[in-house]
Amino acid sequence: MDQKTVLAVDVGGTKIAAGLVGADGRAGRHAETPTPATEPLLVRAMRDLLTSVLAGTPISAVGLASAGPLDMPRGTVSPVNIPAWRDFPLVELASEIVPGVPVTLVGDGIAAAVGEHWLGAGRGATSMLGIVVSTGIGGGLVLNGTPYPGPSGNAGHIGHAVVDPGGPTCSCGGAGCVEAYASGPSMVRWAQEQGWTGADARALADDAARNHPIALAAFDRGTQALAQGIVATAAVCDLDRVVIGGGVSAAGQTLFGPLRDHVKRLATLGFVQRLTVEPFALGRQAGLLGAARTALLAS
Amino acid sequence: MDQKTVLAVDVGGTKIAAGLVGADGRAGRHAETPTPATEPLLVRAMRDLLTSVLAGTPISAVGLASAGPLDMPRGTVSPVNIPAWRDFPLVELASEIVPGVPVTLVGDGIAAAVGEHWLGAGRGATSMLGIVVSTGIGGGLVLNGTPYPGPSGNAGHIGHAVVDPGGPTCSCGGAGCVEAYASGPSMVRWAQEQGWTGADARALADDAARNHPIALAAFDRGTQALAQGIVATAAVCDLDRVVIGGGVSAAGQTLFGPLRDHVKRLATLGFVQRLTVEPFALGRQAGLLGAARTALLAS
Repeated sequence: MDQKTVLAVDVGGTKIAAGLVGADGRAGRHAETPTPATEPLLVRAMRDLLTSVLAGTPISAVGLASAGPLDMPRGTVSPVNIPAWRDFPLVELASEIVPGVPVTLVGDGIAAAVGEHWLGAGRGATSMLGIVVSTGIGGGLVLNGTPYPGPSGNAGHIGHAVVDPGGPTCSCGGAGCVEAYASGPSMVRWAQEQGWTGADARALADDAARNHPIALAAFDRGTQALAQGIVATAAVCDLDRVVIGGGVSAAGQTLFGPLRDHVKRLATLGFVQRLTVEPFALGRQAGLLGAARTALLAS
Repeated sequence: MDQKTVLAVDVGGTKIAAGLVGADGRAGRHAETPTPATEPLLVRAMRDLLTSVLAGTPISAVGLASAGPLDMPRGTVSPVNIPAWRDFPLVELASEIVPGVPVTLVGDGIAAAVGEHWLGAGRGATSMLGIVVSTGIGGGLVLNGTPYPGPSGNAGHIGHAVVDPGGPTCSCGGAGCVEAYASGPSMVRWAQEQGWTGADARALADDAARNHPIALAAFDRGTQALAQGIVATAAVCDLDRVVIGGGVSAAGQTLFGPLRDHVKRLATLGFVQRLTVEPFALGRQAGLLGAARTALLAS
């Protein structure tokens, strides 16, 4: 690997992944570990993971992606699904483990968007929104070909665009957010309220693929809310592409079929109609590669 | 005036304004003319206006702002309220009238946002949305301190973010857009349907200021839709400020009071709660100054 190799880290509520990535996007040594629930296990897991992946390889920078919210200027994170970390100085920890190189921090939503824009389904897009539809809904913007984290680092939070102020309550404390309709658990909850007896989003997608009417209706309702958020963002940000990943996107045509129909129906302005909606090409690696790209751009 | 004087032009459905503006924002000679409905009167009005304002003054660039939609890469405009111009080559016309200097074109919404960011209520904001609430609702983004017109030049169209797909029909052909609730004519139409007997948005604002219940309800309904669009944009674009101008903003506290209440109620995410909502400081000059600023930045 050339001198511009960076160490990329993706911190999530379920697992922490780390890998070496070259300036050309080629991935080197890679490892991941389950995310411990408490300290000091969390810091120890980070230390062990980064040290083992690094194994003495010279790198030019560290790129961190983390579940949010985060405070980019201060380098701290408060991941919703890692309660032990509140205003946790993640940049400082990485600098201590890997001294002497610059450390960048971005949200996992923007990291995934940047990764897809660099090497995946977003290649060639001028202005795009990446969305991760999973237990929550995150996202990130690449505008004029450049990552746009926003002043606080939290841009791309399409999951908490309100599509109906009178809608269901949301994890954020509000009501009627895109996430309250279109996340996996939200679609499952609604389907169960209608009498569907399955357990999770994967079962819901399977049943929808078999034309189960409630499962189909759940995807229709979820994708309409997601489409409303997408079209509003396209109108405001003049997007040419949206790329969608995350666990729920594994439903494939079950998700993308009704989603594209709703986007087409809601996109009335000419410049919004050019928008295309594509699945992630990099899968779960998008975030790690985006963290690497962010570090490469900064170093 | 110094060498960096530019000629700024603001083309709207009601009037065309032009003025000389220095690099420091100081305004020089200025004139405006009613917008003719047909050709060849439109081109003649442009020619006469620009020539008379210029009056031989050496300039370094021309900055055009125009009602949209427009195609920035091609330099053409198709203003909704100027039916005689469809894909009209406005940049080419300006280059013919004022040869030998670069000509920039931006939408009037982004021009107003850029003007306010440069010299008005947006000064010091890192990422802001400017909104013009009038017979329609336009807008523009300044992100990381830089105008963001978007690839097609149409970024900032918050008026056509959908807040309720089952809502009232909108001028864009869709339904439930912010504009279908919060523009002057939309608020007036709704109030009249509830039995209010006034004629226009100014009368509606006057009656709301006198606590007329229907007029108050109309502003409450309109500002809720506008707040929903604002908060969604703040979540996606990580905004720190929104500035609002246009005819309806002359209602002052009648508009800003309920609007700020709705924004506060809907803003559940920490990073969104820092958002402030302010009235334009430059009034109708915002667009002309923003057109000038865009030309200065490009030259």
